[in-house]
Amino acid sequence: MTDKFLFRLIKTDGAARRGEIVTPHGTVQTPAFMPVGTQATVKGLAPEAVHATGAEIVLGNTYHLMLRPGAERIAELGGLHKFMNWPHPILTDSGGFQVMSLSELRKLDENAVTFRSHLDGAMITLSPERAIEVQTLLGADISMQLDECLKLPAERGEIERAMRLSLRWAERSKKAFDGSAKGRALFGIVQGGDDAGLRGESARALVDIGFDGYAIGGLAVGEPQAVMLATVAEVARVLPADRPRYLMGVGTPDDLIEAVARGIDMFDCVLPTRNGRHGMAFTRFGPVNLANARHATDSRPLDAEAAHAAARDYSRAYLHHLTKANEILGAILLSTVNLSYYQELMGGMRAAIAVGRFDEFRRQTKAQWVQGDIPAL
Amino acid sequence: MTDKFLFRLIKTDGAARRGEIVTPHGTVQTPAFMPVGTQATVKGLAPEAVHATGAEIVLGNTYHLMLRPGAERIAELGGLHKFMNWPHPILTDSGGFQVMSLSELRKLDENAVTFRSHLDGAMITLSPERAIEVQTLLGADISMQLDECLKLPAERGEIERAMRLSLRWAERSKKAFDGSAKGRALFGIVQGGDDAGLRGESARALVDIGFDGYAIGGLAVGEPQAVMLATVAEVARVLPADRPRYLMGVGTPDDLIEAVARGIDMFDCVLPTRNGRHGMAFTRFGPVNLANARHATDSRPLDAEAAHAAARDYSRAYLHHLTKANEILGAILLSTVNLSYYQELMGGMRAAIAVGRFDEFRRQTKAQWVQGDIPAL
Repeated sequence: MTDKFLFRLIKTDGAARRGEIVTPHGTVQTPAFMPVGTQATVKGLAPEAVHATGAEIVLGNTYHLMLRPGAERIAELGGLHKFMNWPHPILTDSGGFQVMSLSELRKLDENAVTFRSHLDGAMITLSPERAIEVQTLLGADISMQLDECLKLPAERGEIERAMRLSLRWAERSKKAFDGSAKGRALFGIVQGGDDAGLRGESARALVDIGFDGYAIGGLAVGEPQAVMLATVAEVARVLPADRPRYLMGVGTPDDLIEAVARGIDMFDCVLPTRNGRHGMAFTRFGPVNLANARHATDSRPLDAEAAHAAARDYSRAYLHHLTKANEILGAILLSTVNLSYYQELMGGMRAAIAVGRFDEFRRQTKAQWVQGDIPAL
Repeated sequence: MTDKFLFRLIKTDGAARRGEIVTPHGTVQTPAFMPVGTQATVKGLAPEAVHATGAEIVLGNTYHLMLRPGAERIAELGGLHKFMNWPHPILTDSGGFQVMSLSELRKLDENAVTFRSHLDGAMITLSPERAIEVQTLLGADISMQLDECLKLPAERGEIERAMRLSLRWAERSKKAFDGSAKGRALFGIVQGGDDAGLRGESARALVDIGFDGYAIGGLAVGEPQAVMLATVAEVARVLPADRPRYLMGVGTPDDLIEAVARGIDMFDCVLPTRNGRHGMAFTRFGPVNLANARHATDSRPLDAEAAHAAARDYSRAYLHHLTKANEILGAILLSTVNLSYYQELMGGMRAAIAVGRFDEFRRQTKAQWVQGDIPAL
């Protein structure tokens, strides 16, 4: 435990970075994947099960939690860590992304965004200052500035307007934030769509304001992977080496490897849990769609040599059955398999970077995926 | 492990019995509660989590499993124990109850019941012989005869007709059953509705045929608890002391205590898992409906002194939140809480009978329930 937020860069291998983040609730080895705990729970897993997959930090969604059960309620109950029985680090987003994607957007102006709750229709105003206040009430180890996130493709003028608004909100967020004394961190968010010039300008302006870490927002919102990765590489070059870099809402195993190759340290994504609930397993040999009838008589496990029991102790036929029967245990087991695989992948990348063999790891890992299935026994 | 099914009566205390059942997959301490694994999974819990609640045996539903994934399929995959990764004892019902309650009933005659699958509309014939065959394919440690189960109230003539048909099906089931050499057991099912005379006749006729154990079916199907318990007491007096007695589909914690007081050894019920999925917790202090708004700000756990973490490590406010947000973790935690409480209750009864203090345990346990809530701190 510490009263100072720290990022230590331990080793680089090309642009890939091996590091660690020290927070008031523990240390996070990077590159790190953060499971998403939208409504104060990573869907389908008890917190100790999330930790057992290897996860050291989870993400909480400000938008969902401010609507239900409410940030003040969680603060009265001792904060988000205690509320969800997760004593390890938590990063909270600012709510901006969900305001755009989930709520009926009412009004966006210089001051704030005002929206209608998707739960009960209540009108809510979220300003940069309120987003910081909510995250402080939740007790986040890492808070995010409020930003405006556009879908891509978008007009350059619109991208520039949103980027500049996000910068002004970044300044207000920094001013409103008062967590440094407690070792809490605030991250700024680089915007600018798929425009390299705007992205560079956004990143430099954020660095001038000065944040504990820098996120890249507004990607994986509809653009091709190549555009995303080019933007990531562009932005990473501008960001300071001594601060963590977080690519928001990304992504597939391939996205993770390719973004680490371009200098990213942190990720979050609903993919492992959401796809798990729909019968999809991520494995060393590529994705497996267990709803497919070809698994109905397959007595093999997903991966007999997996570190985690969920991938080892149940046949594909049984996982197929649970998926078809829409049983809770299917969601539990496949979410566990997927989060475990994501953590195994991150651990593999960390180990490879540490010994300067990241490129080899990347090549071998991707070659194994294209087998498309577990090798014949 | 054994190749002979055994029931040992260890101690009696009034009509209450402390015993153990030895099966090919392990020993079950009685009185025992069997969680229901309808579709080859106890809803919401991985098998090791079910076992961790204290459960030593689970029930599998022949009706559901024969429709999906199919008994022959499960047999090819190595049997139900292996399929669902539960290496401990399994009892399967005969499918009769679900045919009556879930399917569109097409035809019941002397030979069999023919019904339409609720899943895909296929026409299926279930005879006493096929019910035995299916359960043998599943590999059940304890199989049940096919019977006809009526809803109560019903006409006496109708009850008698169904009881006599069930007796003839009992004889055919016994003849078709070939598991004894492997230590597998077959139970007969006493029918006769709420008519003491018919119940007594059914029980005596089954004992004449000779089964490894005797179930009481056709109760908890709409009749008052007093009627159920009077019938249980009546039937238990007729049944031999050296065979286990199983009250099917029952019940609430109060039902369990009162039926044990009348000589019952085994139970199954969906209540702990089904109610758990709907926000209801069973505790030492009575049931708690976590959907109720009064829990929204309650930082106390369900039971700070519970043996199981699920009741101890999460606030009522959090469980309320999970219930309102319809999160999978709510179902997981409350199903775990409830199954743990049911097992704790059975363990308490076993310990009390062993030392001849069952009546005291029964009185104290029920007195604690009527507090209706955890005592003020």
